[in-house]
This record gives sequence, C-alpha cells and structure tokens, in this order.
Amino acid sequence: MAHNAFYAQSGGVTAVINASACGVIEACRQAPDQVGTVFAGHNGIIGALTEDLIDVNQESDEAIAALRHTPGGAFGSCRYKLKDIESHRAQYERLIEVFKAHNIRYFFYNGGGDSADTCLKVSQLSEKMGYPLTAIHVPKTVDNDLPITDNSPGFGSVAKYIATSTREASLDIASMCATSTKVFVLEVMGRHAGWIAAAGGLAGEGDGEPPHLIIFPEIAFDRTAVMARVEESVKRYGYCVIVVSEGARYEDGTFLADAGNTDAFGHRQLGGVAPTLAGMVKQDLGYKYHWAVADYLQRAARHLASKTDVEQAYAVGREAVKLALAGKNSMMPAIHRTSEAPYQWDIVAAPLAEIANQEKFMPRDYITEDGFGITAQCRQYLSPLIQGEDFPPFENGLPKVAKLKLSKAERKLAPFTL
Amino acid sequence: MAHNAFYAQSGGVTAVINASACGVIEACRQAPDQVGTVFAGHNGIIGALTEDLIDVNQESDEAIAALRHTPGGAFGSCRYKLKDIESHRAQYERLIEVFKAHNIRYFFYNGGGDSADTCLKVSQLSEKMGYPLTAIHVPKTVDNDLPITDNSPGFGSVAKYIATSTREASLDIASMCATSTKVFVLEVMGRHAGWIAAAGGLAGEGDGEPPHLIIFPEIAFDRTAVMARVEESVKRYGYCVIVVSEGARYEDGTFLADAGNTDAFGHRQLGGVAPTLAGMVKQDLGYKYHWAVADYLQRAARHLASKTDVEQAYAVGREAVKLALAGKNSMMPAIHRTSEAPYQWDIVAAPLAEIANQEKFMPRDYITEDGFGITAQCRQYLSPLIQGEDFPPFENGLPKVAKLKLSKAERKLAPFTL
Repeated sequence: MAHNAFYAQSGGVTAVINASACGVIEACRQAPDQVGTVFAGHNGIIGALTEDLIDVNQESDEAIAALRHTPGGAFGSCRYKLKDIESHRAQYERLIEVFKAHNIRYFFYNGGGDSADTCLKVSQLSEKMGYPLTAIHVPKTVDNDLPITDNSPGFGSVAKYIATSTREASLDIASMCATSTKVFVLEVMGRHAGWIAAAGGLAGEGDGEPPHLIIFPEIAFDRTAVMARVEESVKRYGYCVIVVSEGARYEDGTFLADAGNTDAFGHRQLGGVAPTLAGMVKQDLGYKYHWAVADYLQRAARHLASKTDVEQAYAVGREAVKLALAGKNSMMPAIHRTSEAPYQWDIVAAPLAEIANQEKFMPRDYITEDGFGITAQCRQYLSPLIQGEDFPPFENGLPKVAKLKLSKAERKLAPFTL
Repeated sequence: MAHNAFYAQSGGVTAVINASACGVIEACRQAPDQVGTVFAGHNGIIGALTEDLIDVNQESDEAIAALRHTPGGAFGSCRYKLKDIESHRAQYERLIEVFKAHNIRYFFYNGGGDSADTCLKVSQLSEKMGYPLTAIHVPKTVDNDLPITDNSPGFGSVAKYIATSTREASLDIASMCATSTKVFVLEVMGRHAGWIAAAGGLAGEGDGEPPHLIIFPEIAFDRTAVMARVEESVKRYGYCVIVVSEGARYEDGTFLADAGNTDAFGHRQLGGVAPTLAGMVKQDLGYKYHWAVADYLQRAARHLASKTDVEQAYAVGREAVKLALAGKNSMMPAIHRTSEAPYQWDIVAAPLAEIANQEKFMPRDYITEDGFGITAQCRQYLSPLIQGEDFPPFENGLPKVAKLKLSKAERKLAPFTL
C-alpha cells in the first residue's frame, strides 16, 4: 500500500540542491506502488510543523526535470533547528499529527550538518514515539564539511566557480598591475572549513601561477607573515592574488571580519574579510588593491556547475528514496570514492548518528607547510569534483529556470505556532 | 611595401578585449603585403614609449586564435594618459623615434574613452609632426559609455554575467528569506553610467520579479525613498534584491562609498557601496542582509561571455585593420544597429575626435519614472547584447586560456624615462 512522502530543503541552498530534489521526486514517481503523493515542506521543517505543504504531484514531469538545472531551493529553505524530543515533545507530537493527517511515512531532509541533526531527531519518531516513519537525510552543503561522504553535493560546483573566477580575475589583474592594481583579494565562503578557499588553489597549475596566497580558517592569521608573502609576490610577479576564507581568524579565534550578528543557529554572521584584508595591504604595504566578495553568487552559480557535482546531487536524491523504500531509517546516502584515477564513485548508506553535528575540516597535509597553499594531495582530492560542465539551457541570453506551480496541499489541522 | 603595426591595450580590461586583439592580429596576418610584423605594446602606450615591444609574429596561429576565449589583457594594459603634444613634445618625439626604429606605420589602440584620447593624440603625429602614421582606436569598455557606437565591446558580456548572477542569487535569497536573509545587495561596476546596473534588470522578466530595486549613478540617492521601497518589497515578496552601481551618489555628487583614493587618471577609486547600503538597511529597517561585490569577476567572466559581444569585439578588431590599410587615420570602428528585431548590426567608421573624452549616460527614458528600474525601451536596447553563449573550451574542469610566448622585440634605442 502506498504512503506519502515529505521532502524539504534546509540551511543555505546550493546550485544543485534542486538536482537532489529532482532525484527524490523522480524516484518517488517511479515507485507509484509505494509512494503516493510527494509533499514538499514550504521552507524546510517549518512546512511540516505549520502544515504548509506543497503538493508536488501537481507539477509536470518537465517542471521537475528543470529542477536539475535550477539553483536556489525551489521549495524554500530554512534555518530552524528542532530541539530535543525530551524537552520539546509538543513539536514532535505536532509533526506526527501532520504526518498522520497526510499519510506521510517517508521523510527526506536535504541539508548540511545542522539539518542532519534535525533529520536525526525526526528519525527517532518511530522508536521514541511509535510513529512509523523512515527518515533519510540527503546531503548538501557548499562547505563540504559533512563527514563520511567523499564530498558534499553543492561543493563541487562552488569549487569550480571559485577556481574559474580566480583564474579569470587573475588574468585581469595581471594585465593591470604595471600601472594600477597590484593586489586582488577574493573572499569566499567557508565559515569553519577551508574547502572552498582551497578550491581557489586549483586556478593555478604551474609554479608561481595565481593565487599566490590562500588564507584558510584552519591556519591562524599572522598579519606579518601574510604581508611578507604579499610583498614577495608583488616583487616577484608584479601582483598578488589572494583567496581568503570568510572564516579567516586570528590565533585567539577572533574572526578577521566580525559583523557581530548571529544567525538563527547561533553562528556569527560573517562578511567583509576581503575589504578588511585589502585595507591591511594598503596600510602595511601601500599597494593599490581591488577586492571581491562573491557571497551568494558562488553558491547560486548553476551556470557554471560541475557536471560531477550535478550527477552526484541527483544520485543521492534517488538513492535516498531507495533507502527509504528499503526501510533504512536514520541513514544518509554518502558518496564513496572507489577509484582515484580515473575518479569513480558509488553511493553507500551512512548512519545519520555519525553525521549530524560533525564538521570535516581540511586535513593539515592538504595545506602546504607555510599555510598559504594547497598540496598535491589536496589537488588530487579536489580536482575530480570540478570535472565536467553541465550548462543549463539558455533562453533570451539567460539561464532558464524551473517554473513551479507550488500549489499548497489542503490544510486539515488547526494552525500551529512555532 | 609592407610596414609594421603596433597594437596595445589600455584601461580596465574586459572578458573580450583579447578577442579584439585576435581580430587585429588575424587581419594583419591576412594582409602580408601591407603589414609585416605586429608589435604589441607591453602595458599599452607605455610599451611604445619605453620600446617594450612584444613580437607577435612569434606566436602561433593557435595561440592567437585562443585569445578569442581568454579574458584579461594578454599584452598588459595601462592606466596612462598622454599629455598634449604642445606641452609634452618630447613624449611624441620619442614615439616617432620608436615607430621609426621598428618601421611602425599602423597604430591600433584598444581602449575606452580615456584611451581614445591617447589614440587621438597619437593620430595627430602625422599632421602635427610629419610622421606618416595611421592610428585607429579599437573600442572596448565594460562601462558602455563610448558615444556613437551602439555599444562598447566588453559590455555585453558583463551585462550577461550581471543579469545571470542577479537571477541566480535571487533564487537563492528567495529560498532563504522566510527565516534568514531578507535583503541581498549586489554591487556592480559603472563609475558614472548605470549601464551595468541596468543589465541587472534583465534578470527579471515578469512583474515583481527581482531585482526589485536598481540604484543608478544617474539618479540621486535618496535614502528615505530607497528604504521605503526595500520595506515594501520585503513586505510584498518576502525579500528584496538590490543591484547598485559603484557610482551611486547623493544629490550633491558625493559617492555613497568613497574610499578616498584616486587612480592614475585622477578618478576616485570606489568600492564598498554594497556593504554601505546593507548597513543602512540594517540600521533603518533591521533586516538581515547579504551583499556581494563582483568587482573583477564581472569583467573577467569570459566563461559566461555573450556570443554577440565576442563577435562584435572580434569584428571591430578586424575592421580596425581594414580602416588602417585604407589610410583612414584617427577613426574608430563603431557598431551600428541596423535592425532592432531581429537585432542586426554592421560596423561604421567614426571620427575619433567625436569619441575621445565623451561619456554616454543612460537616457532618462531608459530608467523608470521612480528611478528604480529599467523601462521597456532600455530592455529592448540591452537584450540583444547578451544573446548567445560562447563558452570557452574547458580542460581539467577549468576554462583554457591562451599561453603566449610574449617574446620581446630587440631594443634599438636608448632607454626612456616616463
């Protein structure tokens, strides 16, 4: 007998999270004996709590297929973390009420480490509260900091965007440096882990090719050492390209640029390390600078997605459904690297308890001894993840994106206040 | 009898200035009876003054063809303006000395408005100083502020990049706005003219589609009016996307973000209007924000170049050679729009005296009456310029770029101090 499924997106979105949605939905549509309606939570788990459900069955196959090349989170995402079952039982009772009302027995949550914690808690509904639910986490995060999985879907595309942008902007400043800009600073995402910054390192392939300096959150920021390297680079090559992580921090843990705000998960909202660093360059060395902050552009850049990343994002979506239909509660489809050259991968099931709230940092041996570059091992790890192009269709000069109806399912319950 | 040619790049580079270089060089190679060696000035006109010449004949046809898909300025650009012949005769005598020493009779200068002034002065060498030189300006500027020509090569690609990035980032913030970021600010180039900001407007096609607000340098910044519109947008759509020109300024002409530095042309170095504006949003309305500053990324983004732009950039390069060989001194090949729908264009010769030091601003009727959007006329003008994709070849996941030998021509003269 068919039951219904719930799918939602959580945390910061990516260029390919909708490709995972596409994988989940298409796999469900191909198992009509087991899955009836797919409901998408409007704005993540909040959609489940408030019974704000999108009836995905109303969407055409073409619209669902178009999700594969549409960035952002088509159903709305959220930064909202469930508290413990023990102390916040009412929230979980509400979830069960909603799931029951809509005959939902499959739960797919598409997110990163914080969201995996929410999915883990939901996966305990059957054991702790007796509601028969199979909950599967679908991995996604540009930060690439999920453990176990070879990489996190979303990361490969950001990595390709940052490596490409670094290469392109480096050619620009190289042309200008004789009489104008000498230092270019590109700020990239990665609050705690320097994976995205490391990807900037792929831009240069030969000795002395930019970027000349990568500033990782894993390596304490030492202004004197950084400035010495900047000066050396300008003297040697005529210019200096720096890729800096938004999470760059001093020895004592203070961020270089701390806007002082916190998000809903309690993380401090960062931003502005590029201008901060550029200001230091001006002050200490007097060089003319330019700086860029890619911000959302990097994680929304579906036009330059990695084909490998798109395929993996889609595959973890499909695999999540397979796991759910096999009754594997509290699992996450993880990417497993089966061969290095040629890069080959398959998908394995990983227990969610080993994933939630864990962060995978850059191994020290992925960073050069001086702390300013990536090693051959790092390059070997990263390079396969940016391989291949998967350009979206263009119309009128711009990427086409999915147009969904987003019809809401009829509400059956009383309102619920978060 | 064949004479030699000098080609150089000047001012801020673009994603397609090397496509113009490719056009110039290929056209010269196809006229061996008239053009012997092409010398490229290393770093623009400075290369001519200091006899720092690259012997382009040493480059293979393949390398020259690859210039078509390589961003930045392959021969080095400069921000250096020639003074008047009357007051700085020594510089012009030096130019003649260098041109004579290398049998240079054709001069191609690839740049924007400031560079057109330099080219204009060089074009006076024959009349005022009796040296038989034909000087042609090859148009280029992302700012799209050159007069006469339908558009400036380089602009169409930035426009496509900004429109695409705005669309992509808008999908990102639309997903996040329920519980997180409400306002996204994208800062774009365009010091005095709002063409690039206007291109952001192409991202949205239907009513209410982002961007919700464009801030042009042509319209005095009114904080109260802007904040009212931001609030209205957040209330109506849940979020607000703003595209702001780096040249945004108050009624009295003060820039919103004035770093206080000036470049070699005496222009103030701008940057940081996005964080400034985001700060105002936080202060006045309390919304959570994100901001991005694309900076060099936008004008170096060859991976997303407009096919129309690449073709035009290449064509003006070829046409410049045609004009030079026909003895048309002091001209610029300009793009002429011969048909609106379908967009068709050809190239006409425009007198340099009518181009140098002129800036073409957005016509007032290209901006909506409220000052915050683009009109149908503007859309009709801009849209053809971003049509078509011309993806570069990729290798190892990254765009391939031209690798030039950049062999220097032997020096024949004593050094010269600028």
